[in-house]
Formats: sequence, structure tokens, C-alpha cells
Amino acid sequence: MAKRIAIVGYGNWASTIAKVVGENVQRYAEFDSHVAMWVRPKDINGRTLTDIINEFHENVVYLPSIKLPTNVVAYSCIKDTVKNADILIFATPHQMVQDVCTSIKDHVQSEAVGISLIKGIATKPDGSASAVSDEIRNHLNIDVSVLMGANLANEIAAGEFAEATVGCIHPEHGDMFQRMFDTDNFRINVVRDVYTVEMCGALKNIVACAVGFAEGLRLGSNSKAALIRLGMHEMIKFVETFYPGSDLKTFFESCGLADLIATCSGGRNMKVCRELVQSDKELHEIEKELLKGQSAQGPPTASEIYGILSDVGLEEAFPIFTVVHRICTRQVSPMELVKCLQNHSTHQTVQNRDDASSNSSGVSLE
Amino acid sequence: MAKRIAIVGYGNWASTIAKVVGENVQRYAEFDSHVAMWVRPKDINGRTLTDIINEFHENVVYLPSIKLPTNVVAYSCIKDTVKNADILIFATPHQMVQDVCTSIKDHVQSEAVGISLIKGIATKPDGSASAVSDEIRNHLNIDVSVLMGANLANEIAAGEFAEATVGCIHPEHGDMFQRMFDTDNFRINVVRDVYTVEMCGALKNIVACAVGFAEGLRLGSNSKAALIRLGMHEMIKFVETFYPGSDLKTFFESCGLADLIATCSGGRNMKVCRELVQSDKELHEIEKELLKGQSAQGPPTASEIYGILSDVGLEEAFPIFTVVHRICTRQVSPMELVKCLQNHSTHQTVQNRDDASSNSSGVSLE
Repeated sequence: MAKRIAIVGYGNWASTIAKVVGENVQRYAEFDSHVAMWVRPKDINGRTLTDIINEFHENVVYLPSIKLPTNVVAYSCIKDTVKNADILIFATPHQMVQDVCTSIKDHVQSEAVGISLIKGIATKPDGSASAVSDEIRNHLNIDVSVLMGANLANEIAAGEFAEATVGCIHPEHGDMFQRMFDTDNFRINVVRDVYTVEMCGALKNIVACAVGFAEGLRLGSNSKAALIRLGMHEMIKFVETFYPGSDLKTFFESCGLADLIATCSGGRNMKVCRELVQSDKELHEIEKELLKGQSAQGPPTASEIYGILSDVGLEEAFPIFTVVHRICTRQVSPMELVKCLQNHSTHQTVQNRDDASSNSSGVSLE
Repeated sequence: MAKRIAIVGYGNWASTIAKVVGENVQRYAEFDSHVAMWVRPKDINGRTLTDIINEFHENVVYLPSIKLPTNVVAYSCIKDTVKNADILIFATPHQMVQDVCTSIKDHVQSEAVGISLIKGIATKPDGSASAVSDEIRNHLNIDVSVLMGANLANEIAAGEFAEATVGCIHPEHGDMFQRMFDTDNFRINVVRDVYTVEMCGALKNIVACAVGFAEGLRLGSNSKAALIRLGMHEMIKFVETFYPGSDLKTFFESCGLADLIATCSGGRNMKVCRELVQSDKELHEIEKELLKGQSAQGPPTASEIYGILSDVGLEEAFPIFTVVHRICTRQVSPMELVKCLQNHSTHQTVQNRDDASSNSSGVSLE
């Protein structure tokens, strides 16, 4: 029987992926061409967004001016969206995962498989942090893969080129996801390192915050390149520490290197963090002014990662992740970022320095 | 006896490194504080640049407004510069290496060691290409290490933060080079992968050309991130093919990831290649207009690498390197870059595609 696909989410990225998948499933007998998409029935001048999408095939709120294929059908009820699905695509903000999973828990087919497109860290009710895919796995008791990459949604929706990485344990699911997502202009590579792929998607937002601070401090290109490089080192070290067994090559996939570069070239995290350095305002005020109600993912991710690190006493082993959290929460001055560059733990120690003329900044060389 | 250092080169980067090394040697009894620097006696309003540097301690042509330490002494004669040196720092344009080595060949001490800061590929008299360090090694019969990284010279000269990577086979030389170059704001990591470090420094310029073309074509952020990622893949593959035994970790050092990112965020290669897409002019005309007599290193490097690849029939295995050369020389349209993204050899093949509705661009999926 042809596999039915449901998309849990209706924002910019969810709508973009609905377009990609909606077009792609028509190429394969393997998939049912009907793609269900959960769309909360938000009121738009007296009509619901759900109805508007089904009549005009356009998400006028989150992906305006882009036609969705007519086989993508919006559902107001999240339970109806998922109940017949063999494949669930999760593309909500990470703050919603908990609630979404609770709502659909009793309606998901036991044999269904999931794939998470959510970049971030889930916070459990007890306040502890975990991978979003674990959150979904634990709630729904299904296999969950992930898709991450350098994926600015609007470019993909406009048909421009992008790549992405699918992290998937079972090779047969990997092949299926590749057929679901891969097009000439959206190239998918599949790797088995699920957590590496997922953590790259979350952690790169912290590095983008550091680059935003660097811009606010007017540091040069060498410093920004060093921050991205050292940030990548901390991403690798984090995965090696908390999800051992990763393959270094995965960091060279789109989910790693490419997404890190794209995110550090612009976007919300950079904008908010640049402004944080240049004003006295608190983060939430800056977000309100600059992002019109949207939020940057970097600062909450930095906070969640800081929680994980401090639970095991590893804050100092991840100096950039830690300093980003401390700067975001105004615990330390943004200038601490420069000391973090100078003294980063990956720098090799100079041997036999008989340093009479010690430096003026007083920074120790370990 | 304290080791004497000579700098072969007098441009922007050579002068910057003269400042770093000139200051640093004063911290260690191991080094003679007199640092010799070869400066061709260019005429500046009736005086030579050599004399001006020795009187005013400023390279008014190539590094204006930056004071050099007084222990850096300029020499007009290249033979006099090197004859007493225990350590030779090479920092000329790569086109000059051949001539420089021929001039100093009979004057270099047999026990001297060299370190090359030259990013590029050397062209031998027979037209074949080789690593610059090999060129120096073969001419002078001395050990040659390399120093590469995300190193915009003017930022370093101004005392801003940067990192660099030294590639050095002998650990005792590595420690010595670290003492020579490492400061709080210029952090040096030493690795043993000499050729990997050196090739990164040359090859990243080709990737920057590709990103310049992408800008000229107005491709999006996803495409540019993919180009940088795929460019890094080709850098790794090139080193694995021609200099086997490299360590994947070296590509995460400043010479790899950081320099690639910094170079692809701006600079001459990007500027020239962006313009090449948007005008009908030939490369040399564009360079004349935009760079005021200077040249971009990416196009000649792409040509030299293309020569190496085509000698062994590997052009198609390095699609970005190859297409950059072909676009630079106007053999193919810049739009070939998009096909190169879509069909890059690192993309996994989609299994079991029963593709009835084939795409309009007619690009094969292998």
C-alpha cells in the first residue's frame, strides 16, 4: 500500500517542505499522493488559515506568494492529520514538541516512522534538556530520523538549490526519505549518525550568536573565522562527549559545515546578538524590537546546553558555548568573547616560553 | 648561539609577519633579536624603500601606518639578507619563488631551516606544478615547514586576533616556530601534515572563485554554503589523492575551515569572479580595473590544479575545481556552476526512482 505522509507543522519551513514533498511524492508509486498538513485554524479576516490553504493552495501567513501542490491538504485537527499516516514529518518550533506529542500520542499508528526537521533542544517538564528526536521517540514510541542542513526556507520554496542531510539508523528508511525529499535542487545525503546530524542543527545557532557578538564588537574577519572554527570544535566535542561514536565525516555534510557557514552569515541569531552588544537592553526587548514577535533560537539553545554542561561540570571545556550563554544573560561583558578566543582550550601551549615581557592584557597562557 | 632569522619578502604579509616575529624574538633568549628582511630597493621619491624602512620603521608602500620593531632591519641585497640566517621565512608572491631561490641558492647556510607563508602553487620551468614548499626544498636542499591560516594581514598588523596553523615534520622545529610566531593575539597550532596545511592555503582560493561566481549569478545562501562545503570535499579529496596520509582533523584547523570561511567572505578572488560573471571582459582586464595592478590568486591556482588533474584524467572527479578554471578562461558559461552543484559527485544516488515526471532542466541524476 502506498505510504501516507503527514506534516506536523504549518510555519515557513513546514510549508516549504510540504511543497518539496508534495511535488516529489507524485514521482513515486511508493507514496500516496495525498499529503496531510496540520494547520492550526488561525483566523485571517474571518476565514481560517486551514481553509485558505485548501482553497488557494498558498500559506498566505508563513509562505506567501508560493503555490503549494494541490495534493497537499491542510487539516485543522492535529489528530485527523496524523491518524492514517505511515510517515510523520515534524516541523514545529522546538518549544511546541512536548504539546504536539501529547496531543497525537494516542492517534499515531504503531508502525509509523517519524522524521524531525526541528533544530533546537527540547526541554522536558522537569527542566532537563534532550534531543528533540528523543522527545518524540519517547512520547510516541516510534523510530525517528532527522533532516538538517543549510536550508533557508524561502530559497528552497523559490526552487533555488540547497542540500540537506538525513540522519537515519535504518538504511531502508534512509532510501525512502531520500526519495521523499531529494530533487535536482534539493539534494539529500543520508548518514547513520542521527544525533550528530541533529546536534549540529541545534548547536550551530550558539556559534552564530558568538559571531553576532563579534560583529557587535567590530572584531575582524580573522576573529570571526576563528570563532566559527572553534565553535565547530566545540560542536564536535559536544557530540563526542554526549553521543559517542559519531563519524567526523558527518561534520562535513550539509548539516555540519554548510549549515554552520550559512547560519553564521546572517539571520536572527546574528542580528539579535549584534544588537545585544551595542545596547543596554535585555534580550527579550531586543527580540521584540528586531524580530517582531519571532525569537532567535541561539540564546535558548545556549541556555539549554549550558544546563547540560553545568550538570556534569563541563562548562569550562566548552568556552564558546558557555560564554555565549553568559553574555546573553548579561552575566559577563561581551568582551569576554575576546579572552575566550585568546585562551581557547584547543590552542596548543607554547613550550619553554621564558616570557619576560609579559603581555599587557594579563591573559594567562595556561 | 641565538638563532638568526631572515624574512624573504617585503609585501603586506611579509611586513606583518616581520612585526609579529620582530616583537616575539625579544621574549626568547633562543633567538637573535636582529631580524633581517629583504626589501627590494624600490624608489620612493628619490629614496629607497629599504632606507625608508630602516629610518622610519614603517613599510610605507605595503603596510603603511604600522610601526615595525626597530630590530627588524631591511636589506637591499637578498644574498646579504639570508647569508647568516638559521631560519628563513618565505613570504613572496608564489610567482617569485623560482627566481628568489635561484638568487639565494649558494648563500643559504646548509643547516638553515625554512618556513613558507606562501599560498599558491609553484610552476616549474617545464610548466608542471608543484607545492611551493617542494620548490624551495628542491632548490635549497633545506627542511621547509609552512604557516597558513585565516590571516588577513592588516588585521594582524593592527594587533587584532587571528590563528594560524604550522605544518612541520620535526617536532623540535614545530616548538621553535610556535615560539617565533605565537602571541596572545596570534595563536599557532602545529600539526605534522605539511602538505595538507599547504594545499589548504592554495586550494581555498579556487573555492572563493566559485563563491564569487555564485554572487555574480545571484545564487542564494544555501547554494553558497553548499559550494563551500563541496569545495572543502574537493580540497580533502585532492590532498588524499596527491598527498596520501593526511589527517582529516587538519582540515578543521585554521589553515582549513577558518581560512576557507574567511576567504569566501570577501577579498580579491570573490570580487574578480563576481565581476567576470556580470561583464564580458577577460580576467586580466577585470583585474586591471578592480585590483589596480594586483592579481587574484584563485584563477592561476585553478589553472595549475587543472593541469595537475588533467595530466592524470581526474578533471571530472573535481567538478568545482574544474568548472572554476573553465569559467575563468571563458570555456564554459558561469551557469555551469549550477549544474555542478546539482550533479556533484559527492551527492548520493537516489535508489529506485521511477521518475516519470522528469525535471525540466534535463540534468541527469546519474
